[in-house]
Formats: sequence, C-alpha cells, structure tokens
Amino acid sequence: VVEYLKLVEDVLAGTRIAISRMITKVENEHEDAPEAMRLLYPHTGRAHVIGITGPPGAGKSTLTDKLAKEFRRRGKTVGIIAVDPTSPFTGGAILGDRIRMLDLTLDAGVFIRSMGTRGSLGGLSKATANTVKILDAAGMDVIFIETVGVGQSEVDIVKAADTTLVVLVPGLGDDIQAIKAGILEIGDIFNINKADREGVERLNIELETMLDLNLAKPTWRPPIRRTVANDNQGVTELVDTIYEHMTHLHNSGQLATRRTDRTKNEILELLQETIRRHILGVVKQQGNFDALVMQVTERKSDPYSVVQTMLAPIIK
Amino acid sequence: VVEYLKLVEDVLAGTRIAISRMITKVENEHEDAPEAMRLLYPHTGRAHVIGITGPPGAGKSTLTDKLAKEFRRRGKTVGIIAVDPTSPFTGGAILGDRIRMLDLTLDAGVFIRSMGTRGSLGGLSKATANTVKILDAAGMDVIFIETVGVGQSEVDIVKAADTTLVVLVPGLGDDIQAIKAGILEIGDIFNINKADREGVERLNIELETMLDLNLAKPTWRPPIRRTVANDNQGVTELVDTIYEHMTHLHNSGQLATRRTDRTKNEILELLQETIRRHILGVVKQQGNFDALVMQVTERKSDPYSVVQTMLAPIIK
Repeated sequence: VVEYLKLVEDVLAGTRIAISRMITKVENEHEDAPEAMRLLYPHTGRAHVIGITGPPGAGKSTLTDKLAKEFRRRGKTVGIIAVDPTSPFTGGAILGDRIRMLDLTLDAGVFIRSMGTRGSLGGLSKATANTVKILDAAGMDVIFIETVGVGQSEVDIVKAADTTLVVLVPGLGDDIQAIKAGILEIGDIFNINKADREGVERLNIELETMLDLNLAKPTWRPPIRRTVANDNQGVTELVDTIYEHMTHLHNSGQLATRRTDRTKNEILELLQETIRRHILGVVKQQGNFDALVMQVTERKSDPYSVVQTMLAPIIK
Repeated sequence: VVEYLKLVEDVLAGTRIAISRMITKVENEHEDAPEAMRLLYPHTGRAHVIGITGPPGAGKSTLTDKLAKEFRRRGKTVGIIAVDPTSPFTGGAILGDRIRMLDLTLDAGVFIRSMGTRGSLGGLSKATANTVKILDAAGMDVIFIETVGVGQSEVDIVKAADTTLVVLVPGLGDDIQAIKAGILEIGDIFNINKADREGVERLNIELETMLDLNLAKPTWRPPIRRTVANDNQGVTELVDTIYEHMTHLHNSGQLATRRTDRTKNEILELLQETIRRHILGVVKQQGNFDALVMQVTERKSDPYSVVQTMLAPIIK
C-alpha cells in the first residue's frame, strides 16, 4: 500500500521515473492502478490535450515534435503520447523504436511515451486516457496524443483530446478520400503538411468543399493551415491557431461541455469494466462455463439462453 | 411477435429481402434482434468464413469479386460482407456507393452487403459477426468478410473468419511495413495482388523473412500467392489454396478449436452487453447520474468512487 502512495506523490511532484512507472501500471492493469488513479484524479483537468491524427505518411511525428518545441519556446511543459493501434501484437515496439528528436528527449520539460495495444483496443483507448491524466496530474501544460493511422480506433483515442488536429498531405490516392470523410467530423483544425508538394491547392479546395457541407459545428469553422514540418515552416502559425481554438473552447463554454461529456463516458466505461471483472470472477466460480460453451458449439443451446442462465444469480 | 417469426422462416428459406431486413435489424439493434438471432442460431456453423484484409489500395474489392465468381463456378453460394470501419459517421455509404461487379449482383447465388460503423466499433464487429450468422443460416456456403484498412478494428472483425487472407501490393511505402507487422499474425494465406507491378519479388522475400520469424503457427505455414485480380490471373490457384487451408483446418482439429474459442468470446461479449443494457436501465432509474457526473467534473469526487456507489444496489 505504501508503495503506490509514494508513487502518486512522486507523480504529482513531476518525477520522470515515477510518471513512467505509473503509466506502466495502468497499461498492465496492475491491481493498484485504480486506487492510484483515484488519488491522482483531483489533480487533473488543467492540461490542454491536443489530438493529432491523419493518414500514414503525413509526417505526424515530425510535426508533433516541431509543435512541442514551439510550445516549449512559449514556456509550456509538454507531454507526448505516441499511440500505434495498428500493432496489436508488438506492443508498440515500432513506435517505441522510432527515434524522436534528440534535443526534445533531452529536455526536462518534455515527457514522451509510446503506446501500442496490449490486448484489446478498448484497453488502448483506456490506457491512453489514463496516461493523459497522469501527465496532467504531473503538471504538463500541453499533452499531445499522436496516433498512427485513421481508423475508428484513432477516432476513439482522440476523443480524449480538447483540440483535434487532422494532418493531411497532398498527392495521396483515392483511398485517402474515404479516410478523410471519416475524420472530417472530428477535426477542429486541419493542417496540410508537406505543403511544398504538388497538389496542395487541390487538397485545400477539396477540404474547403467538405467543410462547406459539414453543418455539425456552427460556432467554429475548422481552419485549414499549411506546414512543411521538416523545415519548421508554418509551425508558429499552427500553434497560434491551436491557441485560438483553446480560447474559443473556453469562451464558448464548449470546453466545459466536452469535458462533462467525457466524464460521463468515462464513468459509464469504468462501470462496465468493473462489472466485467466481477462477472469474470463469478463465471470462474460457477465453474460450468466450458460445459455451456460446448452446448452452444454443438448447437444444443445458443449464446442468448446461456447468458440468461449465467446472469440470473448475479444481478439483483 | 408473429412478424419476426415469419422473418426468421424467410431467412432460413434464403429469401433475399428477408436476409436484408434481418441484417438491418441487427445493425439497428432492434428489440426483436436477439430473439430472432436465437432462433437462427441452431442453423449456423455450416458456412466457411473467409476474412479479407490488407492496406487501402491493395485491390481487395476486385479480388473478392473474382474469388466469389470462382467459388460460384465451383457450385458454391456466396455471401460478401464489405466492412468499412474507417467511416464512423457516414454509416458505410462510401462502400455502399461502390459499384460491385454487375454480373455478381445479378447472380441469385450471391448476396452482397456493405456495412459501416453506426455508433461504436464494438457495434460493428458484433453486427458483422451477426451478419455472418444470418448469411450462414440462409444457406450461403462461403462468406467473405472484406475490410477496408488494417487497424485493430479490422483485426477484431476478421476474428469471425475461419480463413484469413491478407492482401498486399508491391511498392507501398515504409508505413505499410509497420502495418504488415500487425497483420502478420492473423494471416492464414498471404496474397500479393497487382503482382505484375515492380517490387513483387522484394515484397515476397520480405514476407518469407517475416514468416520465418513467426513461430506461433507450427502446423500451417501461411503460403504466399500472387494475383492480378483485374485480369483474373492467379485467382483459381488462390481458391485452391483456400480449399487447402479449409482441409487443413478440418483435419487438424483446428476448426473445432477456433470455433469453440469464438463461441466463448461470443458468450462473454453477449454477457457484457446484456449487463451494459441492464445497467443503463438502472442508471436511468436511479436518476442522479448527472449530479454524480457534475461532482466528478468539479473534482469533488472521482469516477472510481462514483462507480462503487452506483453498483452497490445492482450487483448481488
């Protein structure tokens, strides 16, 4: 018990090794994790969380690193969570191996963590959300969640963000069009990276057209910015735009609304997870699960009838 | 009540309009859906389910269509489920709009259905699994699940397949390498499509190397095949390989093992879902959920404590 209390204390003091260990605890679903997170919770809600998503090859890592440096220049501490949901088996090794900008990793005001799916996808978005809270409680002013790819998994992950930045790149094929349709609704800011490439004007027009059709966000028209992250072009302006969005969220009351919605989902998910654990315990105790599975496999019963039988003794 | 009994009867008779309506019922989580699925369940387990996944641009749709035609030529009825998890908001409209081979859609022995995420991703893999069961009960011999993209979502979706075909294409960039690492473990057969392109030998060597490193499947070394789906090249041979894998699954007892595992997961997921519904009902009844959320948002409480309070009156 003393061990995790000390850990929580050290996280709140911003100790790097404690932050790392706490994240590993939530990733591994250590038994102390819920209680430790409960103690960190009152110290959260201060950081601004920025989600960065977009197709592979858009240069998200480089852009995130440059944005981080710009926020550092403006005196902010920065956390970076690099999430790779395409890799359910390697546990994020691909991203983990990727070498971030050296001067960034040496900066005491920056904390970088790579995450892959260990087990379920639900597990990944939960671990990401908890990592955001840990970095928030540790005093990071700005937290980036950078995702690889643009599937539903990424959409779920960036739900933890206050500002979502969608990074696109000129000259990708037709499949990217399909992807764009899926992420259009979640983008607060669109950024065309590698904007020195051919096709930038066409992509800009396409985006504007798509945004014209989108009536869901009347109070904030997502601006379209351009960067060449490799040469640090447009990065300052993009950070200015992020600040504008922050200000808009505060002034319009949307930050409060978004965070209340997030809390609601968080409680419902925790509710579900707690019950899931309880049920798995009871299923083990009942001891006849394999026999029931066999009955269903042999079509002597069906999943619906089996579930009713199993639940009767558990739920009031 | 009479309405869904008639529907189940018509699905079992293979009536196309009934199949469509039944799929819509499970997609929309209609209140009759669980009972209707319960009645269909004893008639499932006969079809061979083939998952097709791979990066965007690999030509999965065309390949699926050609494979379907080849199975038709061999006297099999075919179901095709085209899943697009990248599109959480459009409800699969992109795929729905895609025009499949006209002679295939006119064939009474073929049933094609496009699906996108309506609501949660978990919802999509559940709806896909249920659609497989509906097509199975309706008498389809072979059912294809074709997914767009290669994220964790697709991995979850192809879990419903007996044989998983991973489609790759020569000459894609470095990001694809990362994707390949994630789907290597789920591939029973690898197919290099557009094999008339440059880079096919290199991709073949890379795949062989990766398969050499994979020690998880000792009884079946995933073969690597080549097709040019547009010209129907290699399709017959690929179908032969699928038959070889089917035979291997039967003879090795792996089909039974895989299906038992799937039934297990299915029951556990249904258990969870049933409880989730029950809980949401109770939460509504308790009526103080919004007040509890507000306490958490204001950091006067935390999600962990709130969940304990809420669960006490529900669980025995």
